[in-house]
Amino acid sequence: MSSPLLQLSNGSKMPQVGFGLWKVPNESCADIVYNAIKTGYRLFDGACDYGNEVEAGQGVARAIKDGLVKREELFIVSKLWNSFHDPEQVEPILKKQLADWGVDYFDLYIIHFPVSLKYISPETRYPPGWFVDDASTKIEYGKSSLESTYKAMEAAQKKGLTKAIGVSNYTGALLLDLLTYATIKPATLQIEHHPYLVQPKLLELAKENDIVVTGYSSFGPQSFVDGDMAMAKDIPLLFDHDVITSIAKKHNKTTAQVLLRWATQRGLAVIPKSSSQQRLEQNLAVTNFDLSDDEIKQISSLDKNLRFNAPLNWGIPIPLFS
Amino acid sequence: MSSPLLQLSNGSKMPQVGFGLWKVPNESCADIVYNAIKTGYRLFDGACDYGNEVEAGQGVARAIKDGLVKREELFIVSKLWNSFHDPEQVEPILKKQLADWGVDYFDLYIIHFPVSLKYISPETRYPPGWFVDDASTKIEYGKSSLESTYKAMEAAQKKGLTKAIGVSNYTGALLLDLLTYATIKPATLQIEHHPYLVQPKLLELAKENDIVVTGYSSFGPQSFVDGDMAMAKDIPLLFDHDVITSIAKKHNKTTAQVLLRWATQRGLAVIPKSSSQQRLEQNLAVTNFDLSDDEIKQISSLDKNLRFNAPLNWGIPIPLFS
Repeated sequence: MSSPLLQLSNGSKMPQVGFGLWKVPNESCADIVYNAIKTGYRLFDGACDYGNEVEAGQGVARAIKDGLVKREELFIVSKLWNSFHDPEQVEPILKKQLADWGVDYFDLYIIHFPVSLKYISPETRYPPGWFVDDASTKIEYGKSSLESTYKAMEAAQKKGLTKAIGVSNYTGALLLDLLTYATIKPATLQIEHHPYLVQPKLLELAKENDIVVTGYSSFGPQSFVDGDMAMAKDIPLLFDHDVITSIAKKHNKTTAQVLLRWATQRGLAVIPKSSSQQRLEQNLAVTNFDLSDDEIKQISSLDKNLRFNAPLNWGIPIPLFS
Repeated sequence: MSSPLLQLSNGSKMPQVGFGLWKVPNESCADIVYNAIKTGYRLFDGACDYGNEVEAGQGVARAIKDGLVKREELFIVSKLWNSFHDPEQVEPILKKQLADWGVDYFDLYIIHFPVSLKYISPETRYPPGWFVDDASTKIEYGKSSLESTYKAMEAAQKKGLTKAIGVSNYTGALLLDLLTYATIKPATLQIEHHPYLVQPKLLELAKENDIVVTGYSSFGPQSFVDGDMAMAKDIPLLFDHDVITSIAKKHNKTTAQVLLRWATQRGLAVIPKSSSQQRLEQNLAVTNFDLSDDEIKQISSLDKNLRFNAPLNWGIPIPLFS
């Protein structure tokens, strides 16, 4: 089993279905990555902030050692955390993250959030998180513009430390501003994307600029109910939604597969995770059936412009999206 | 009757209650401005895009000529339209707008929206609007970064063409990015603000940075129902909302006054308009009563994070806020 590939503007091809490492526990991460590779996953979507890059890299190393896969067959994604936005910090932290993974380049390296926080050295605290220290909920902003950070990302790509660069959690206004100064266009834009947050015009804007969109939290409220977010509990789970369940029944697929197909059939990449072998396989097999145009429309019409993964919803006092 | 003043970071004082010129018809604009000055208004909030700066200036000129007011007692605000973001266009268009008003400086000049559109010469079309020409709905983006535009705004302030500069329709992420490169902090942030769109953390962020917030569309859906916007019709008018009407009755004030007081008591400036003399006076008299903390909380709790004035809601395909 394998994922179809999407063409990126840097010339590489990126698997359309990948494995997202957010919230994958450290103790099982290496085994999970190893097993995902065995199942056919080739893209792994990691981040400094997920705190499991060393373990993910161990899973990769074992899979390579066992001959399951070669490095060049994998597509490893990582992200620049907010506290490393100072241009002079981008290369050092990228190199540390490469060392954690045990690889010598990333396939894609992404600005995780469009906000610069004050630098915290990896020796002091890693991953650093949102707050100035573990004991407080104080935010200390950094002094680096998004442009200066992006230029350091471009330099890292030119050095070969990453094959492509991208951004995440950018709104249209931020993306448009970036496009005025980028000399290397971002290859991808990673955003929260599910039937409650469709953002069709942002997707069009990305497409016009040859930017592949990766949707995260494809199942909507689910990841956030698990994370105990109040607003996610006030809304029907997409897994239980009549529109989704009836389409799933018709195609003899799971609701998760319908949600992933709705995204992939519209050209997005997705990065679900699962700890169940069956669902791992189902998620990867998501491009072997097609929804009708009408079914896609029905699902898209569930849009409520409802964003779960905003810092404010986690009690982090940064009004990124307001 | 007069408005209290708010201290701005550039050293000037700004009337807390002003008169907003959006949608003021050209044929009556001069009289309306003249009469508003007579009523006690000192701040006028204009913009290239409103298409009535010449007429507003005529009202001002007549009021000065008649001895109602001196220029230095007025606080004239104007805005840089999206198609003049190229740094070299900022000063020429600002000077044209000053000439239209018939004044030799603005008290505040604001970036209207955080998006650069392709330059259109004022000789070709003025005001230029969102689309490339009157016949189409095509958008053509400009190539100037928000930083380059802001630096031209700073230069205009240093030249004395405006006493202060500000921004409008910026999200928290855009404002934070601006603060990394601004050498003159914006004196004000103008945003849509009403009980359906409270954005408390954005207000806090502005306050921490000594930026006065001006709330527009203080009456919520009202301005947009008038503009025939579908989403504004799906929600109860704030003028009819039980919470607002019962508080208004208790204070023997109008619902409009309660809405304006809710904003001004929390430190915001407001820029309502009215064609009725009675309401004109009522709006200006809005700081002569106080709501209780509990009443303020009740009103704030109507928050739905519901933004009306997004380009997408007007059929303009620019996903600024998504």
